[in-house]
Amino acid sequence: MRIRVDWRSSCSLTGTMLRWLAVPLAAPLGLALLDGDDPRPFLVAIAITVVVGAALEQLKADRDLGQRESFLMVALTWLGVAVVGAVPFFVAGTGTIAHPVDALFESMSGLTTTGATVLEDFTIHDRSILLWRQLLQWLGGLGILIVAIGLLSHLMVGGAQLMETETQTQNVRKLRPQISETARLIWGLYVGLTLLAIAVLYGLHLLGLAPQMDLFNAVSHALTSVATAGFSPQGESVGAFTPIVQWAIIPFMVVGSTNFVLLYYLTQGEFKRPLESEELRFYLGTIAFFGAVVVGILWFDPDVARGLEETVRHGLFNVVSMITTTGYASTDFNVWTPGAKHALFLCMFLGGMAGSTTCSIKSLRWLVVLKTFRRNLFTSVHPDAVRPLRLGGEVVDEETVNDIFNYVLLAIVIFFLLTVVIVVDAARAGTAVTEFEALSAAASIFLNIGPAFGMAGPMDNYHGFPATTRSIMIVMMWIGRIEIIPVLVLLTPAFWRS
Amino acid sequence: MRIRVDWRSSCSLTGTMLRWLAVPLAAPLGLALLDGDDPRPFLVAIAITVVVGAALEQLKADRDLGQRESFLMVALTWLGVAVVGAVPFFVAGTGTIAHPVDALFESMSGLTTTGATVLEDFTIHDRSILLWRQLLQWLGGLGILIVAIGLLSHLMVGGAQLMETETQTQNVRKLRPQISETARLIWGLYVGLTLLAIAVLYGLHLLGLAPQMDLFNAVSHALTSVATAGFSPQGESVGAFTPIVQWAIIPFMVVGSTNFVLLYYLTQGEFKRPLESEELRFYLGTIAFFGAVVVGILWFDPDVARGLEETVRHGLFNVVSMITTTGYASTDFNVWTPGAKHALFLCMFLGGMAGSTTCSIKSLRWLVVLKTFRRNLFTSVHPDAVRPLRLGGEVVDEETVNDIFNYVLLAIVIFFLLTVVIVVDAARAGTAVTEFEALSAAASIFLNIGPAFGMAGPMDNYHGFPATTRSIMIVMMWIGRIEIIPVLVLLTPAFWRS
Ligand SMILES: [K+]
Ligand SMILES: [K+]
Repeated sequence: MRIRVDWRSSCSLTGTMLRWLAVPLAAPLGLALLDGDDPRPFLVAIAITVVVGAALEQLKADRDLGQRESFLMVALTWLGVAVVGAVPFFVAGTGTIAHPVDALFESMSGLTTTGATVLEDFTIHDRSILLWRQLLQWLGGLGILIVAIGLLSHLMVGGAQLMETETQTQNVRKLRPQISETARLIWGLYVGLTLLAIAVLYGLHLLGLAPQMDLFNAVSHALTSVATAGFSPQGESVGAFTPIVQWAIIPFMVVGSTNFVLLYYLTQGEFKRPLESEELRFYLGTIAFFGAVVVGILWFDPDVARGLEETVRHGLFNVVSMITTTGYASTDFNVWTPGAKHALFLCMFLGGMAGSTTCSIKSLRWLVVLKTFRRNLFTSVHPDAVRPLRLGGEVVDEETVNDIFNYVLLAIVIFFLLTVVIVVDAARAGTAVTEFEALSAAASIFLNIGPAFGMAGPMDNYHGFPATTRSIMIVMMWIGRIEIIPVLVLLTPAFWRS
Repeated sequence: MRIRVDWRSSCSLTGTMLRWLAVPLAAPLGLALLDGDDPRPFLVAIAITVVVGAALEQLKADRDLGQRESFLMVALTWLGVAVVGAVPFFVAGTGTIAHPVDALFESMSGLTTTGATVLEDFTIHDRSILLWRQLLQWLGGLGILIVAIGLLSHLMVGGAQLMETETQTQNVRKLRPQISETARLIWGLYVGLTLLAIAVLYGLHLLGLAPQMDLFNAVSHALTSVATAGFSPQGESVGAFTPIVQWAIIPFMVVGSTNFVLLYYLTQGEFKRPLESEELRFYLGTIAFFGAVVVGILWFDPDVARGLEETVRHGLFNVVSMITTTGYASTDFNVWTPGAKHALFLCMFLGGMAGSTTCSIKSLRWLVVLKTFRRNLFTSVHPDAVRPLRLGGEVVDEETVNDIFNYVLLAIVIFFLLTVVIVVDAARAGTAVTEFEALSAAASIFLNIGPAFGMAGPMDNYHGFPATTRSIMIVMMWIGRIEIIPVLVLLTPAFWRS
C-alpha cells in the first residue's frame, strides 16, 4: 500500500478535464459572435482552462489512480470546473451573477445539475451567457453518468456497487470490455436523447403548437431536461410555454432519470430486461403514487383546479420534476395549498434511478431500505432465520445493504444540519426565513433539485438568502452531487496519512 | 419452535396488568370523594379493569412468553390500558374529552407520556380528572422503564441490546439476579425521584417563592416531569409558575431522561460510572449545543429577549423540554422567531438516554450512528481495515449497529409518511394546516413529545385537526412509544404463522 495519497495524479487528471472544458466553451463563444455580443467572457475562460489545465497536467505524467486518488480527482474536478465555469458570469459583469459568490453559485448549481439560480432578471443577459448555464448542466449530467456507471460503482460509495447487480452493467462490460467503451455508449445515448429532445421541442414550434419554443429555447430545454437539471432561460421556467410543451418535456425528465444501462438494452431491442427491473417499477410507482396525491389535493382545492387536463398536467409535471430532481416548474407551485407543496417537498428526497443523471437519494437505495425493513421485521420475529435480501432475483450482500443505510441516514442528517445553519445564519443576518423555507431550501440544495418554496420558490431565486448562506450552499451542492463520501473522506486524517 | 404465536398467554398477562390498573385508579377516586366531585367515572373504570382483566386472565393460567408473545403482550397492554384509561374522561362527560375519540386521544397521549392534549378549557374539569391524566403519564413512564430495562433490551428491538454494554445492566442483574428485583430497584428510584420533586416544588410554595404551586400542582408536575411526559393541569403549562419553579423543573426533566441504571449506581455511591458513560456526555452535549443555539437566536431577536436570565431560562427550559421529550413550555414558544422554533423542532428527534422514561430516537442510537459514520469514512478509504465500533471501551457488534440504523431510518420514514397523511387529511377536510404544522405535529406525536407549532402549539391543543387525523395520531403515539417494532411485526403474516 502506498504511504500517502498520490494527490499529484488526482490533480493531473483534473487538469486534463479542465483542459477539455475549452471545447464546450466554444459553443457559447460561437453564439456570442453570432449574436454580435461580447465574446470576452468565454475567451478569458478558455484561456484559463487551457493554461491552468495544462499546468496541473504537468504535476504528473504517469497517472495511477487508486481508491483515494479517485475520490480526490472527482472532488477536485467538480470544484475546478465549477470555478472556471463561473468565469464567464463574472467577466460579463451583468446582473447579480457579476458578484464572485453568485457567479460561483450559478456555476456550481449548473455543473451539479441543481438548477438553483441567483439570477434576478433573465432579460438582461446575453443568450451566450444563458446558453453557458444550460450547457454546464448538460456537462454535469454527462459527468455524473460517467462517474456513476464507470467510477462510483467501482469505488462502492453508498451502495453504488449494487447497480451492477440490478442492471448487469457487467454484462455490458463483458460485451464491450473497455471502460472507455462504456463511456462511449453512455455518451452516444446521452447525445442521442438530447438531439431527440431538440427535435421534439423544435418540431412542436415548427408545427405552430409552441410559438415561444424557438431553436434557442428548444436547445436550452433539451440540454437541461435530459440532464434532469432544470435551468431554463425563462424566468417562468416551463410555465412560459404551451401545455403541449409541458406534456412533451415530462417523458424526457423521466428517461433522463432512468438507468442508462437499461436504456442501452432498449436500444439493443432487449425489452424484457427493463420490464424485469424492480427498481424501474419502484421508480415509476413513486411517480404514480405522489402524482395521484398531488393531483388529488389540487383537485379538491377550488383555488387551483381549472379542469381535469390542467390539474393532472400541473400535478404530474411538478411531481415528475421533483422526483427526477429536474426542478422545472410548469406553474408557480409556491402558491399551491400546503398539502400539495408538502408532497412536492417529500418528493425531493426520492430521486430517480441509479445510473442516470438524477440526483437525491435515488430509488435503488429506497427500494433496498424498504425491503430491508420488511426483512428485518421477519427476522425480529424469527431471530434464527437467515433471509438474504434479494433484488431482481439476485442476493444483495449485507455489506451493500449497510452501505445504503449508512448513505441514506448520512444524507438525512446532513440535510437536517444544513437547515440549522440556514436558520441560524438567517437569524444572525436578520433575514426572515420560515422553517419550511429553510427545510425545503436545504433539501433542494443538498439533494440538487433546484427550486424550493417561499423565497426560493420556482418563480423566485436564492438571492434573498444572506451571502454566507449562499456560500455554504455552494459547498453543499458540490458535496451532495458527488454523493457526499468523496468529499467527506478528504476531511479525515486517515485520508492523507498512510 | 411453537407452531403458532401463543396469543392466550399474551392476553392473559395483559389481563393481569389491566386488573392492577384498579390500584392507581383509587387515587383520583379518593380525590373526587375528597373534593365532593362525581366519583362515578373512576368507579366505572375500576369495574371495567377488574372484570375485563379477570376475564382475560382466564384465557390461560400457565403463561409462557417467547419473543412473539412478549411483543404482543407489550402492544396489547399499552392499547388496553389506554382504552380503559379513557373511560373516566368519557364517563365524566365534560368538555372535548367527553367524545370517545378525544377521550382515547387524551388517554393514549397520557399513557405514552406524549402529553399532546385535546383539552380546550382546563378550568371546567374536576381535579380528579386532571389528576388521572397526570397519573396515566406517571404510570406510562414507569411502564416504559420496566419494558426498556427488563424487556426491550432482552428482545433486542432497534439496538436496545446495546444498553447492556453501555450501562452494564448485567452487572446490576448479577448483583440482584431476579428480573423482578431489577423492576423493584427501578420502581424505588422512580418513586423516590417523584417524592423528591413533590418536596422541592411544594417546598418552594411553602417558602413563598411559588404562590401558585399548591400541593395539587406540585404532585401533578412531579408526576409528569420525572416521567418526561408533560401534561400540566395549567393551560399555560409551566409558564403559569414563577421563574424559580421553571429552573427547579429543569433538573427533574434531565434526570428523568437519564439512564436509570446509572442513577442506581449514583445511589450506590459509584460516581465514576456515570462519568465514564459516553452516552451521558453525548446527551448533555446535545442539550448544551441546542441550548446555546436557541439562547443565541433569542438573544438576537429584539422581540423576545428581556434580559439575560429570562432569555437563558426560556431557551434552556424549552430545549431541555424537547430533548428530554417532556413537552412542557415555560412560555409560548410558538411566537418565537422561526430559527428558534426550527431548532426546537429538530430537538424533538434527539431524545434522552436509553433506559430512561424518555421517548424519541434517544441519544444512545444517535451516538452509535455518528460513530458509525466516522468509522465508515475510515473504511471507505481503507477498505481492508477492520475497525470495530467501540462504546465506552467495549466493542459493539455489527448486528447491533445494523439494528440501530434500521430503527432510526424506520422512525424517520414513518415520520415523513405521517406528515403526508396529516396534510392529505387536512386537504380532504378543508382544514388549514401548514407544512411546518404538519411536520412538527407528526414529529411531536410519533416521537411522543407533546406540543408542536402552529395550531398544535404549547398554549393550544390538537382539537383543531380533523377527527380522522386525531384517530390516526392515537395509533401513532402507541406505535412510537413502544419502539415501533412490537406493533409492526403484528402486521406481518410471519408473526401469526409458525
Ligand atoms: K435539478
Ligand atoms: K412528552
